[in-house]
Amino acid sequence: MVVLSKVISVENPAFCAFITCGSVLVIKMMAMSIITGRLRKKHGVPASPEDVVFLKGKTPVESHADVDRVRRAHLNDVENIPLYFFAGFGYLFTEPDPTVAVNLFRIYALARIAHTLVYAIFVVPQPARGLSWGVGYGITGYMAIRTIRSLSCPMWFNN
Amino acid sequence: MVVLSKVISVENPAFCAFITCGSVLVIKMMAMSIITGRLRKKHGVPASPEDVVFLKGKTPVESHADVDRVRRAHLNDVENIPLYFFAGFGYLFTEPDPTVAVNLFRIYALARIAHTLVYAIFVVPQPARGLSWGVGYGITGYMAIRTIRSLSCPMWFNN
Amino acid sequence: MVVLSKVISVENPAFCAFITCGSVLVIKMMAMSIITGRLRKKHGVPASPEDVVFLKGKTPVESHADVDRVRRAHLNDVENIPLYFFAGFGYLFTEPDPTVAVNLFRIYALARIAHTLVYAIFVVPQPARGLSWGVGYGITGYMAIRTIRSLSCPMWFNN
Repeated sequence: MVVLSKVISVENPAFCAFITCGSVLVIKMMAMSIITGRLRKKHGVPASPEDVVFLKGKTPVESHADVDRVRRAHLNDVENIPLYFFAGFGYLFTEPDPTVAVNLFRIYALARIAHTLVYAIFVVPQPARGLSWGVGYGITGYMAIRTIRSLSCPMWFNN
Repeated sequence: MVVLSKVISVENPAFCAFITCGSVLVIKMMAMSIITGRLRKKHGVPASPEDVVFLKGKTPVESHADVDRVRRAHLNDVENIPLYFFAGFGYLFTEPDPTVAVNLFRIYALARIAHTLVYAIFVVPQPARGLSWGVGYGITGYMAIRTIRSLSCPMWFNN
Repeated sequence: MVVLSKVISVENPAFCAFITCGSVLVIKMMAMSIITGRLRKKHGVPASPEDVVFLKGKTPVESHADVDRVRRAHLNDVENIPLYFFAGFGYLFTEPDPTVAVNLFRIYALARIAHTLVYAIFVVPQPARGLSWGVGYGITGYMAIRTIRSLSCPMWFNN
């Protein structure tokens, strides 16, 4: 039986790793906004018409490949990282081995950081982006499936 | 009074249903990426210029109606499902009837799966999509309002 | 030591404020869908080709500045608010002063509501939008960094 006080607790290394790695990804995603803002200024691509005041006389253009690239990387984060937040939380209740859990959280965070670097910062050719995305995808899927298998106990089918 | 050990616990059927249904939706959203990837390959629509290597000589095109459709369905998930994750978590603390709670979580998951099927897979005419979206929307709203009503106790207004 | 029963508990004012303010933001984000839907109808911009049936004979157009504006505001919510959900949850485990915590959650919610008002409803010139966005951004960043500093204890580095 899972004793809750051992799951959602700062004394549970898996919980600490989940929260810490997740918070690192929060900061990483926040960085995307800053990078986008700088590229918008540099290339004169306002996010909204009223932002033209920030361009200091530069002629505004509709889009620029660099801005679009960072936006795509950011959108990929938005599509994937909240799923990890939920699946990782559920996974904590499946009594995972602490060392495995801690390392999956770490690898997930590193894979997503690598995804941003190869997609938006250094523009590394494929399959670099596909691989970094795939590692995070596999971990999220593993956690979600393991959670479904352990928590969809007959108990709640009786309700 | 809500005793926490009875709320966030694998012995609480409502909690198990919340986590299980949410994990099913994680898998469902993950499937959108695979479907998008296959359609991009089929119709020659790279997500990013460097993905042209995956098209095996096909001439890349900027967009295709089928890819756009799956992307819209995916974006609708991104806009709605994280709200359910939060509202559902808060709702667990409002002492809901377990049978009601379990069934709301199930119906939510089924409605979102139906939304994907009618939007992106079978392309059913309206109002099918509107209805499936509305069911999920109503459940999320009910949970959020109930949570605000029960947790915004005078207690925290004194701080 | 953080005693869990005092963290994730309806008797913890910080927890109540976190859940309540988060639920208010869930409702706020849900409102974006309604506003978008009304503007789509008004300006004849279907979200998807099958939505033409809702336009009552109006000629469908591809886009309209008002629809695009609400969509940008909504997307900004999608990029930012789930990060607050995660960072706020982690922050609860850092033993924050209850008064500080309660007020940060409140200010965050107010800042995001202000962001929507100045971006999508009243279209206030800059820097109104930048400021309201920045307040929320700063609070999320503060919570995430504080969480990383207090939970990335040596404990989980040993695993």
